[in-house]
Amino acid sequence: MLKGRIQNKPLLIAEFIKFASEHYGSREIVSRIIEDGSIHRYTYREAHRRSKQLAKALLGLGIKPGERVATMAWNTFRHFECFYGISGIEAVLHTVNPRLFEEQIIYIMNHAEDRFVFVDLTFIPLLETLWEKLETVEKIIVMTDRDHMPETALPNLVCYEDLLAGYDDDFEWPLFDEWAASSLCYTSGTTGNPKGVLYAHRSTYLHALGAAQLGAFGISAFENVMPIAPMYHANAWAFPYIAPMCGAKFTLPGADMSSPALHQLIESEKVTFAAAVPTVWTQLFDYLEQSGLKVEPLKRTVIAGSAVPRSMMQTFKEKYGVQVLQLWGMTEMSPVGTCSNSTPEVEALPDEERASVLEKQGRLVFGVEAKIIGPDGELLPHDGIAFGDLWVRGPWIANGYFKDESGQILDDEGWFPTGDVATMDPYGYIKITDRTKDVIKSGGEWISSIELESLAVAHPKVSEAAVVGVYHNKWEERPLLIVVLANDAEGLENEIKKDILETCLVGKVAKWWLPDDIVFRDAMPMTATGKIRKLTLREEYKDYLAKSSE
Amino acid sequence: MLKGRIQNKPLLIAEFIKFASEHYGSREIVSRIIEDGSIHRYTYREAHRRSKQLAKALLGLGIKPGERVATMAWNTFRHFECFYGISGIEAVLHTVNPRLFEEQIIYIMNHAEDRFVFVDLTFIPLLETLWEKLETVEKIIVMTDRDHMPETALPNLVCYEDLLAGYDDDFEWPLFDEWAASSLCYTSGTTGNPKGVLYAHRSTYLHALGAAQLGAFGISAFENVMPIAPMYHANAWAFPYIAPMCGAKFTLPGADMSSPALHQLIESEKVTFAAAVPTVWTQLFDYLEQSGLKVEPLKRTVIAGSAVPRSMMQTFKEKYGVQVLQLWGMTEMSPVGTCSNSTPEVEALPDEERASVLEKQGRLVFGVEAKIIGPDGELLPHDGIAFGDLWVRGPWIANGYFKDESGQILDDEGWFPTGDVATMDPYGYIKITDRTKDVIKSGGEWISSIELESLAVAHPKVSEAAVVGVYHNKWEERPLLIVVLANDAEGLENEIKKDILETCLVGKVAKWWLPDDIVFRDAMPMTATGKIRKLTLREEYKDYLAKSSE
Repeated sequence: MLKGRIQNKPLLIAEFIKFASEHYGSREIVSRIIEDGSIHRYTYREAHRRSKQLAKALLGLGIKPGERVATMAWNTFRHFECFYGISGIEAVLHTVNPRLFEEQIIYIMNHAEDRFVFVDLTFIPLLETLWEKLETVEKIIVMTDRDHMPETALPNLVCYEDLLAGYDDDFEWPLFDEWAASSLCYTSGTTGNPKGVLYAHRSTYLHALGAAQLGAFGISAFENVMPIAPMYHANAWAFPYIAPMCGAKFTLPGADMSSPALHQLIESEKVTFAAAVPTVWTQLFDYLEQSGLKVEPLKRTVIAGSAVPRSMMQTFKEKYGVQVLQLWGMTEMSPVGTCSNSTPEVEALPDEERASVLEKQGRLVFGVEAKIIGPDGELLPHDGIAFGDLWVRGPWIANGYFKDESGQILDDEGWFPTGDVATMDPYGYIKITDRTKDVIKSGGEWISSIELESLAVAHPKVSEAAVVGVYHNKWEERPLLIVVLANDAEGLENEIKKDILETCLVGKVAKWWLPDDIVFRDAMPMTATGKIRKLTLREEYKDYLAKSSE
Repeated sequence: MLKGRIQNKPLLIAEFIKFASEHYGSREIVSRIIEDGSIHRYTYREAHRRSKQLAKALLGLGIKPGERVATMAWNTFRHFECFYGISGIEAVLHTVNPRLFEEQIIYIMNHAEDRFVFVDLTFIPLLETLWEKLETVEKIIVMTDRDHMPETALPNLVCYEDLLAGYDDDFEWPLFDEWAASSLCYTSGTTGNPKGVLYAHRSTYLHALGAAQLGAFGISAFENVMPIAPMYHANAWAFPYIAPMCGAKFTLPGADMSSPALHQLIESEKVTFAAAVPTVWTQLFDYLEQSGLKVEPLKRTVIAGSAVPRSMMQTFKEKYGVQVLQLWGMTEMSPVGTCSNSTPEVEALPDEERASVLEKQGRLVFGVEAKIIGPDGELLPHDGIAFGDLWVRGPWIANGYFKDESGQILDDEGWFPTGDVATMDPYGYIKITDRTKDVIKSGGEWISSIELESLAVAHPKVSEAAVVGVYHNKWEERPLLIVVLANDAEGLENEIKKDILETCLVGKVAKWWLPDDIVFRDAMPMTATGKIRKLTLREEYKDYLAKSSE
């Protein structure tokens, strides 16, 4: 091979904070602190200094390259320092989701073999509950100062500020292989144990460069970015890397996700760009509605986690002057896959058509490739109609899980199965129509359960709706619509069924998509993360049509 | 090492055109064609198809990975296809600068061992002159169709369109090592033979991602980008990669760089962003002034090659509503090093102070590191005053030249010597104050020749000015100002000298910076690329002060 004559400078995470410190040194990081909810304010320059102190401290405590160090923490300046202090010395930052079931946390911390855990005061009681079952943790570093150290029976407690005070910042970030693991984030499916996604320095660096582009988030030094999405959810969608890389001001909400607290930060710190799941905004809208307040500084928000309702996009745009960017991705994708920025072609469409394109999950970010595969393994056209299994490939997408759980997960050409079913339209916009395991295969053709659900839930008497495929002796599977009625719903069941069918479904989907029946129940079975557990529903109703035809 | 579990997808140049074709397939590439100056218009989808045909054709002609294929061509759609067709099969695109001296072209084409050369009709006469001395070129591919093939005695001529017509586009871009060489660009210094900068696929990919950021060019799908800078000058500053990556419309001026032709393209194609050296704009300003025309669609321009005069920035901004971005870089830097975007801190400055910051060469683009070293090897502070040798490091910066000409060029820590002398201010803006070899060392302190020249040339009677260091028995070197007077300059030499000193220099620089004398001459010795050959001046005047004190 004739090799290019270019410097082999490894793509390492420490570059982000180093660059911000040198070139945007006076830009602020603002945090709501855990101890008393007050505001902590410092600069990238200071954050860099303290990240170096933390790095030295960890080396002093004997942390070696490749070893895992856990955090159980909110979005604060100290957690931000961990992103650099831990990964920067080639140790692996393991961001634990403290909202998981206790058994899951115990499983993942033992599986990760975390040597230390950095913990916010909020989670001390949780750690007390877990402690006996954690097999590898040697030290607990409490992310506070001496005055706020908790009364607890937990052993091997270290005060974060005391630890840092023992080290100066005379430290050069080490150079090492860019393929070295940088951070670890477990995903919990609806079945089986959580699996660890192990990011590399290289992938994190490339992902940040890709996600900061105008084709994705489009972040400049003039933004003030607030990730409300927690740092333990796929690294807060990379903003702890992107903000310093772009020299953006960085605002961190700490533990208080209440609407008044978030609103206050947006106004007082002049947050221009926020990242959150839809429910955060639903609550904020209620608060703004009741209080008559606005969110003047906010110009854009990126929303992920589940599809953004058109009404939310409209409210944001028309009432608050905020542009909504949808993001679709996965923990396995670092997480950015698509972003719903507009294009000249889409801007030229009539209003209604443009809105229906922009409410999709968005266009692929440069770096990510996708293919959509139909029921018979064929590549589907990008016509916005044909839907199939969505596979992705790219330099920030997982090729397996930590310790090789689940074994080989890619196909022969290196594609990763997202588990989503999607369409892609001629403008390049992807729309997620289902989860692969939820799609219904009727007579060899696919029916989208999500599309039927979103139609049914629009009925005023329907509170929750789930569509599952149930056994049918002729068609293999047929859709069954399961409904939880609204508290105030009145009327005969048969009449409500008829009304749901006629007002919400007939004429809106192909005739053969119409559910064979509608059943009512008092409540849905739920997963740990608050989603309807379709597995249980499928099991419960699997013979429903067989029985009803007996 | 604990390796991240992320896909090893190589960073290859073909990804740019593939992405544009799939996701911005209908976006246009517009070229002024060589044959008759008319407009050629097609899409990224079509460009991708034809690039694949070209790739197949080259493989059909026996081109192997690592072999060099030259182009002598303007910015056109066919040259754009060469960027992908050649690099995409792991061959090396060698963009020859047809404006070099014939001996230099012969040297570099023999040194590169180019097997084929793609040539525009314009350069057929040049190639006829060179042909006998080209030792390795087997085939000449004329970038035109059958009807326009030239009458020439050149052997082994192939018609570009005929060649493509022989192949279909059923082709998958091969996957290979991202460190493979992708393209080759020779730099000509003022002494010695030109040296080849050999880019890698990886470096080109990273450079495009870095340069497209809002901290640098900030390119989106809403831009229409026109590189007036030629593709043989450091790949037209990466726009043939950036435009498809960002889905920007791409406008190529072909061979006609006249102001009316450029103006017409800007207006009719609605060019929003153009890249050029300052002289292009000086001429355009004259044309606009005389014709009373404007450049309404143009919003931004990036300018490099030499420092942009403040008056040009002001005219652009105030008269034409165009924002000027300065770019500093080198062929050895792919080429982007800095870009003069503003920041919130700079925006907050008073007008005059802000203007003086923004007329510097700009802030480092993320990915590039710089250090500034003083006369005694010490790291200089970023105070905007201390100037020293500028060294750079980063994943798109050369570590040597093709065939290892010049040997080891980096220092022990991997830094590349730019040959420029610079300051960096507290806002991170770099200002180039001199070339290393032109700086004057007087009594152990440095004097900037460029600063003295730019002051002297402001005098109405001065047409050209050069300052060189000449031997002095006490101070080692002292500055001598050499002047070519304007045609209409009248007056006694001694009075003009006094006037230049008093109106342009005294009080504007430290007293010990003032030139020991001013000499007049009829013309300056020039280099091949139109710069003053200071080497000759230094040689000629080296004993000037010794003599004058005899």
